Amino acid sequence: MGNRPDDQAPARRRVFAGADCRSAIADSRSFAWPVRVYWEDTDAGGVVYHAGYLRFFERARTEWLRASAIGQQRLREELGVVFVVHQMNIQFNRPARLDDLLSATVAGVELRSASFSVVQCLLREDEAKPLVEAQVRIACLDALRWRPRAIPEFLLEEIARL
Amino acid sequence: MGNRPDDQAPARRRVFAGADCRSAIADSRSFAWPVRVYWEDTDAGGVVYHAGYLRFFERARTEWLRASAIGQQRLREELGVVFVVHQMNIQFNRPARLDDLLSATVAGVELRSASFSVVQCLLREDEAKPLVEAQVRIACLDALRWRPRAIPEFLLEEIARL
Amino acid sequence: MGNRPDDQAPARRRVFAGADCRSAIADSRSFAWPVRVYWEDTDAGGVVYHAGYLRFFERARTEWLRASAIGQQRLREELGVVFVVHQMNIQFNRPARLDDLLSATVAGVELRSASFSVVQCLLREDEAKPLVEAQVRIACLDALRWRPRAIPEFLLEEIARL
Amino acid sequence: MGNRPDDQAPARRRVFAGADCRSAIADSRSFAWPVRVYWEDTDAGGVVYHAGYLRFFERARTEWLRASAIGQQRLREELGVVFVVHQMNIQFNRPARLDDLLSATVAGVELRSASFSVVQCLLREDEAKPLVEAQVRIACLDALRWRPRAIPEFLLEEIARL
Repeated sequence: MGNRPDDQAPARRRVFAGADCRSAIADSRSFAWPVRVYWEDTDAGGVVYHAGYLRFFERARTEWLRASAIGQQRLREELGVVFVVHQMNIQFNRPARLDDLLSATVAGVELRSASFSVVQCLLREDEAKPLVEAQVRIACLDALRWRPRAIPEFLLEEIARL
Repeated sequence: MGNRPDDQAPARRRVFAGADCRSAIADSRSFAWPVRVYWEDTDAGGVVYHAGYLRFFERARTEWLRASAIGQQRLREELGVVFVVHQMNIQFNRPARLDDLLSATVAGVELRSASFSVVQCLLREDEAKPLVEAQVRIACLDALRWRPRAIPEFLLEEIARL
Repeated sequence: MGNRPDDQAPARRRVFAGADCRSAIADSRSFAWPVRVYWEDTDAGGVVYHAGYLRFFERARTEWLRASAIGQQRLREELGVVFVVHQMNIQFNRPARLDDLLSATVAGVELRSASFSVVQCLLREDEAKPLVEAQVRIACLDALRWRPRAIPEFLLEEIARL
Repeated sequence: MGNRPDDQAPARRRVFAGADCRSAIADSRSFAWPVRVYWEDTDAGGVVYHAGYLRFFERARTEWLRASAIGQQRLREELGVVFVVHQMNIQFNRPARLDDLLSATVAGVELRSASFSVVQCLLREDEAKPLVEAQVRIACLDALRWRPRAIPEFLLEEIARL
């Protein structure tokens, strides 16, 4: 019963400190992953194709989870659980270019029983303002039926620690 | 002078009727473009990779512009103008799968002097609820300096007509 | 027994006429599928990113199979079979560009019991010489164990007819 | 005159030792670049989408060039030169999967005045046989006119040293 989305105790529904990109970066718990821009990422405008930034952000989230031993192949095979992007609000401030070395950050914002939100920023070395910023809501789904599912207890605790 | 972003007469800043996906689809002016799901679009979850939907939406916007003779290669070469996605709010309701035949719609929402917004939906045959919905703000940039630029007058009129 | 890769009668191992791009196009049995170049396909060189041509060719092969009622989702779900690219020899002659309307052709070359080869060309309107040419060997695999498998009898006949 | 493709002295047309994947890996001069498989790289077959391997190989070539200070953005801006894939022969032996950590190698094979060839392999930890092997011919083009161009002298020497 304790795993139903609705009856999670508020204490577990921890709200993370950083709600926007700037405070997320300042937050000591935020995670960063390096991203190099290759030809494959660019378009004829000479900059990174807009959908490419979503791939960069997903790599960072995957590594953020991996850093606390949450491999996604294992999630699916052992727990029958898959994390999918449910909602995304993304702001493209300035473009990244070929050969740029970027940093994609992840910081947790809100943890619910069957989903969690993160704030993500894409930064270029020596620049304060993020090139791209996003709030991303991730839903936990049953890997077979593709239906919402409560995040397994131990994962909730892992994610809360991140 | 009339081309500066700030001094556009309100009369030109037409606000389109449809602000959400459902009314946009009902709107007789909304545009739809067919999209077939291929292997390239899917991921190991067996569904379309989330960033792939942005590619589908962009094809629809490109064809929507092309339908009123606004080719993007021409935009860049003749007018030195490029349209880029500036902000996007996207909701992934249900996944599309291999071989699905989808329809990506575009309906204008708000036209400003240097940007415009559209609502886009991704629909599967015979289903009322969109698989994916997005509000997208498109900025007009100078193709060389990659800085905001007023949308050329005749384009403003074209887009308002769409 | 008739389904083991080795004991296929030579009569079934039909060799198609066209072995290169030019004769494949001339061959009345060759199949063509339209491809439009979008931003997603281009790179910072201003042309289609080289791996993008493989996606174009795969769409054409998928539609070529679909044209004889061989849907790939169905192949996998009903027959437990998946077709994968095993080997590819690809020549990039000239680049395609944004907004180009191309035609991707498919013509069968050689049919074996557990694989088949096709020649594919990418053509631009009104141009005789293909932008890109490829010989592609497709293997039939068991969808679960990902091991070589004989192409089911009725599919062999379907493909031979293509 | 010395830069015309045809009149390069044979002495400069160095032929590298390794002509296939195995000898290329054994070659102490071969270069390796790590590649992690993310969701973006996979398809509904549960494995890496075939065109994705071309992206992996290109990252490795780019880093191989960067390792000898040949940045591609700089190539284009300072020398007006761009390297493009002209021909590729690629063999897909076994698939890579989500979360796999791979190694993409590059070893030079043949250096001509306006092009060079490399052998590339994709390896998984602790496995001897490459998942994917490719011979790739890279042409040197004028970045503006997109026509074949002799590789600048100092680059020839750099590449010969790689």
